[in-house]
Amino acid sequence: MPTSIPDIVISRLPIYLRALDRLAQEGFEVTSSQELGKRLGISSAQIRKDLSHFGGFGKQGTGYKITFLKDQLRAVLKIEREWEVVLVGAGDLGTAVARYRGFADRGFHITCVFDAAPDKVGKQVAGHVIQPIEKLPTVIREKNIQIAMIAVPAEYAQSVADILIESGVRAILNYAPINLNVPQEVHVQYIDPVLHLQQMTYYLS
Amino acid sequence: MPTSIPDIVISRLPIYLRALDRLAQEGFEVTSSQELGKRLGISSAQIRKDLSHFGGFGKQGTGYKITFLKDQLRAVLKIEREWEVVLVGAGDLGTAVARYRGFADRGFHITCVFDAAPDKVGKQVAGHVIQPIEKLPTVIREKNIQIAMIAVPAEYAQSVADILIESGVRAILNYAPINLNVPQEVHVQYIDPVLHLQQMTYYLS
Repeated sequence: MPTSIPDIVISRLPIYLRALDRLAQEGFEVTSSQELGKRLGISSAQIRKDLSHFGGFGKQGTGYKITFLKDQLRAVLKIEREWEVVLVGAGDLGTAVARYRGFADRGFHITCVFDAAPDKVGKQVAGHVIQPIEKLPTVIREKNIQIAMIAVPAEYAQSVADILIESGVRAILNYAPINLNVPQEVHVQYIDPVLHLQQMTYYLS
Repeated sequence: MPTSIPDIVISRLPIYLRALDRLAQEGFEVTSSQELGKRLGISSAQIRKDLSHFGGFGKQGTGYKITFLKDQLRAVLKIEREWEVVLVGAGDLGTAVARYRGFADRGFHITCVFDAAPDKVGKQVAGHVIQPIEKLPTVIREKNIQIAMIAVPAEYAQSVADILIESGVRAILNYAPINLNVPQEVHVQYIDPVLHLQQMTYYLS
């Protein structure tokens, strides 16, 4: 498999996979780049080009077998396995993240929840006993965890990220409304719903 | 003010604003494109170019006055006012969205929460009495609401979106893990944390 797939292509593959999951749930067994394109608002040519990076999974005219294409995409994205994830922050936001059922359904298992507040440590959230943040490095190293979610207040997010990275984490999903400074080899994605709202108000009257 | 600002520039302005809020909280009164760039991982040239679309808010060498720049960006993004938002869906996800404090802090007020389930209607969530989904068109029209958040299961999201758009909504923040088909004049942004995780696993070992 080539190693130089453009980031922009990789970023679209989970969207294709999500649409394929949906088609499968609706009972379809075969689809086409036209059908996918229509559902996603992406041109069918773009979809064929993206998939061709991995050798192409269908023939023009016969369409894609959904189960096969799903398996291939999951393999490319390395999500045919389950990933262990740590969650830092057990306040309102962290509690909502811990309770969100969508992670486990789609291959991400929250291993451990951490918080710095002594009154939170030892309590339960979504079946996890909240651990003191001091244990973060040990847990990450012992379990060889590469993915973390940050749901702490903005002012603590960078120092939490520093500890995570120092301990071996290579991918961070950051719910705190602040940009993180990380080394080049560490991947960060952001969840900030207000940013998305503010990206739309410009177009309203 | 010019009307043809590229979408990609608009999409970066909320990120600049968030960084400026942070700088102000840290006690800074003046900043520079270099400082902003360092914090955001964006080149200072890019930041100056983006801001120049609006006439430029600072002089080379003297930096930007943070309060002034914040006000200008808020005016451009039309968030110097408060926006009313409806939330559809009061399950686990909708409840978490309703309880999230970050919206009100940054100019978005949840006016009303709707659900289709008779056992939810009439109950309270985050201070809102849950309304039946049948009232959606009336509330949107009466209050002239342009923004909605969807937090219903994937299979209902498109039909909810259709009702919202038919009633006058022009911007949708969709938490349901499915792509929506909407007319060109309607803006949609997505919140799906699993997509973000799946965009990073490709790069892990």
